[in-house]
Amino acid sequence: MIARGTFGIVDAAIAERIAAIAGADNCSRARAERELHSVDQSMHPPSLPDIVVWARSAAQVSEIMRLANANRIPVTAWGVGTSIEGNPIPLHGGILLSFERMNEIVAIHDEDFQVTVQPGIGYKDLNETLARYGLFFPPDPGANATIGGMIANNAAGIRTVKYGATRDNVLALQIVLADGRIIRTGSRSVKQSSGYDLAHLITGSEGTLALVTEATLKLAPITQHNIAVQAVFDQVADAVDAVVAVRGSGLDPVALEFIDSHMAAMMNSSPNVSLAESPQLFMEFHAAHAETLERTMAFIREICQDLGATQVLATADNKERLALWYARHHVFESFQRLHPGQRAYLNDVAVPISAYPDLIACIDELRIESGLPAYLLGHAGDGNIHIIFPFDDEAEYRIVDAMNARVVEKAIELGGTATGEHGVGMGKVDFMAAEHGEALELMRQIKDVFDPRGILNPGKIFGA
Amino acid sequence: MIARGTFGIVDAAIAERIAAIAGADNCSRARAERELHSVDQSMHPPSLPDIVVWARSAAQVSEIMRLANANRIPVTAWGVGTSIEGNPIPLHGGILLSFERMNEIVAIHDEDFQVTVQPGIGYKDLNETLARYGLFFPPDPGANATIGGMIANNAAGIRTVKYGATRDNVLALQIVLADGRIIRTGSRSVKQSSGYDLAHLITGSEGTLALVTEATLKLAPITQHNIAVQAVFDQVADAVDAVVAVRGSGLDPVALEFIDSHMAAMMNSSPNVSLAESPQLFMEFHAAHAETLERTMAFIREICQDLGATQVLATADNKERLALWYARHHVFESFQRLHPGQRAYLNDVAVPISAYPDLIACIDELRIESGLPAYLLGHAGDGNIHIIFPFDDEAEYRIVDAMNARVVEKAIELGGTATGEHGVGMGKVDFMAAEHGEALELMRQIKDVFDPRGILNPGKIFGA
Repeated sequence: MIARGTFGIVDAAIAERIAAIAGADNCSRARAERELHSVDQSMHPPSLPDIVVWARSAAQVSEIMRLANANRIPVTAWGVGTSIEGNPIPLHGGILLSFERMNEIVAIHDEDFQVTVQPGIGYKDLNETLARYGLFFPPDPGANATIGGMIANNAAGIRTVKYGATRDNVLALQIVLADGRIIRTGSRSVKQSSGYDLAHLITGSEGTLALVTEATLKLAPITQHNIAVQAVFDQVADAVDAVVAVRGSGLDPVALEFIDSHMAAMMNSSPNVSLAESPQLFMEFHAAHAETLERTMAFIREICQDLGATQVLATADNKERLALWYARHHVFESFQRLHPGQRAYLNDVAVPISAYPDLIACIDELRIESGLPAYLLGHAGDGNIHIIFPFDDEAEYRIVDAMNARVVEKAIELGGTATGEHGVGMGKVDFMAAEHGEALELMRQIKDVFDPRGILNPGKIFGA
Repeated sequence: MIARGTFGIVDAAIAERIAAIAGADNCSRARAERELHSVDQSMHPPSLPDIVVWARSAAQVSEIMRLANANRIPVTAWGVGTSIEGNPIPLHGGILLSFERMNEIVAIHDEDFQVTVQPGIGYKDLNETLARYGLFFPPDPGANATIGGMIANNAAGIRTVKYGATRDNVLALQIVLADGRIIRTGSRSVKQSSGYDLAHLITGSEGTLALVTEATLKLAPITQHNIAVQAVFDQVADAVDAVVAVRGSGLDPVALEFIDSHMAAMMNSSPNVSLAESPQLFMEFHAAHAETLERTMAFIREICQDLGATQVLATADNKERLALWYARHHVFESFQRLHPGQRAYLNDVAVPISAYPDLIACIDELRIESGLPAYLLGHAGDGNIHIIFPFDDEAEYRIVDAMNARVVEKAIELGGTATGEHGVGMGKVDFMAAEHGEALELMRQIKDVFDPRGILNPGKIFGA
């Protein structure tokens, strides 16, 4: 890859040309705006863009890309900055292209369970509108991430075990290439075997291949009858057995979350939360009709008790259900309560579920070795794990960064991946060679096809 | 693309080198073998390979590719020849590389709901073994297609509405590139946001990007309590409304098939089949436990009757369920009974479900215009439609080929795709520009990255 020095910069003349394309109201070189767009929600260091531009249309994006490409100016796409691996930090300066003002719903195809949107819409805002149609877009990374950002990172979340990640819910994209060409990929058919699957190649490419200017997404019907379950176990291995049994039961969980004893203890710092401080599962299920709720709950209870659950709480009452999830949804508040003033280093790896006990044993070892706390929660239904490492200063950062590396290497060794849902961004660059081997070279060559001058989000995925 | 004349051929010297790699017992230049591997189950004309080679290992495939690449000899992968769009026909001769003898199960990861296999295993054979673990690989294209062929075509089938197509069930691949490099892509984690999604780019690329020598697949638990439903309607539009309502009900159908009145009439030629000759749906649902079967059936009946079904048959009895599906599974036998000596031209398109009535109206018009029969069945749950056009001779072939083209163009116009599950092969090449526009050029450039000399299944997807 080419070093920073060889990129063009946005000088006054280029800034004027950008303003002519996007309108003066949609550009800012003010330091405050540049700072706001220099960092995401991670612990990665900030990097200032030369200019922040709010695109209004695909045509504008196309013109800006032509200009940037001709002058080899880096372009980094921005949704709302909720990434946690440094994904949208403009490492090499240049143009920070925000999609915040391209946030319209283009069309709702309710009969087809589909919606077409601009990339800047927040998924929570989208789901608020879709609720009127009894539909929702299932991936739920938290915060109010934009659809564009979710597509860039292949974001996932709690409901992925049933509904898949963002990639599984993308049907078609309009994209702008580095040279300004506007292209459509995919179709409104949910089944596609027509040539190479470009739409899903773009999904998860973190803005390094193309910019998404419109997306057609799959939707799911909102379910009416939901069951929440908490099951507590003595041993991690028992909890994992229950995960396997639940997945094998045909009950098709909507959520299947693991928390370790340390995390349970941390959650107990929240008001009105008192969890057993043992490994446990939080689950959610859907029943198609009210009449079968009781039978379904009994069935889930049976499965968990058979596998050694020491405590099972199952409820179909909506208030009780939300209360059960309250602690899970307020992890960061309880972190701040327990570790005031400290920062959180957030790890994201994923492994086959059978490797969960080995991975967790590795984390236990690291806790003992370092004497530092580590809190663990995971989307167990799909083998994803997050560890929260509190840290105070640069010295502790270096320790937890090394602990993170050990966990990532272990996950790869166990047949898993360096990142289940946060993407590579800046934080996982160093693990790509170990995870992908020679396939990384193919990825680089594909990058060259889409972006031969290397201006799209440079420094991400491949580093440098 | 480069014309046929510029490819190398397998002469005696090359054949000897291939035999040295694969073993003499695993190669044949006999006309009978070459003829057996010159055509799939479609109406596309045969084309003879120079040699048939049965690979035994990825290492052999690698050596053969190095030899082929150096001499620019075409290599076309072969599973068992059940494709229906000419996908594995060796259009430019060269090496027909059969994976029939690489048909082992490498590892069963039952706790992870995963299996690793060689590409030559038939999915029905695989599922027979997996049944012992209570698991199965859900995509079901019919015949006993090999996993390698299913990956190549992104094959799907009746259960796709619930479980997805092959692409949705591929986790990791070992592939051999045109230059002989052996590469791994993807991982055993079901959640992956780590770099570009090469495994799913390879899936559906019809052997034009790389050869799959090993695949790790997602499995699903076998369900014990199944419900079959047949619902008859007066109008296509009512049946489509029922498809939308069923998908919106949260009942998560395992199968959701449409057949038109003409197809119902054809099916009635089967012994013991007497269907109403009206538009109708065949469905299958899963109930997680026996106690809720009755209530679930009543719920489905309600939905269909509310939407104007004139007849609803629902059963949880296994014998009755299989009897209901009998007609659907024996379409080709009833075709042969009704059209003895005629051949079948099989169409495959997919659209958003809301466009079903428009697409079907187009087919009705074509029937009237041509005076020829056309039978329609569709995986309505995912908007896929197949039309069977009987034809007798070259003159009729030209007519039905033109009818097929009209249907494909209509599907694309309606926001759909030229192929939902059969792939592009030879038959859909001419529609790629209309469907993909400028994206086709990107696909070509990706092809050049993987296969710069154009030796992998030449003539497919891009033509020439």
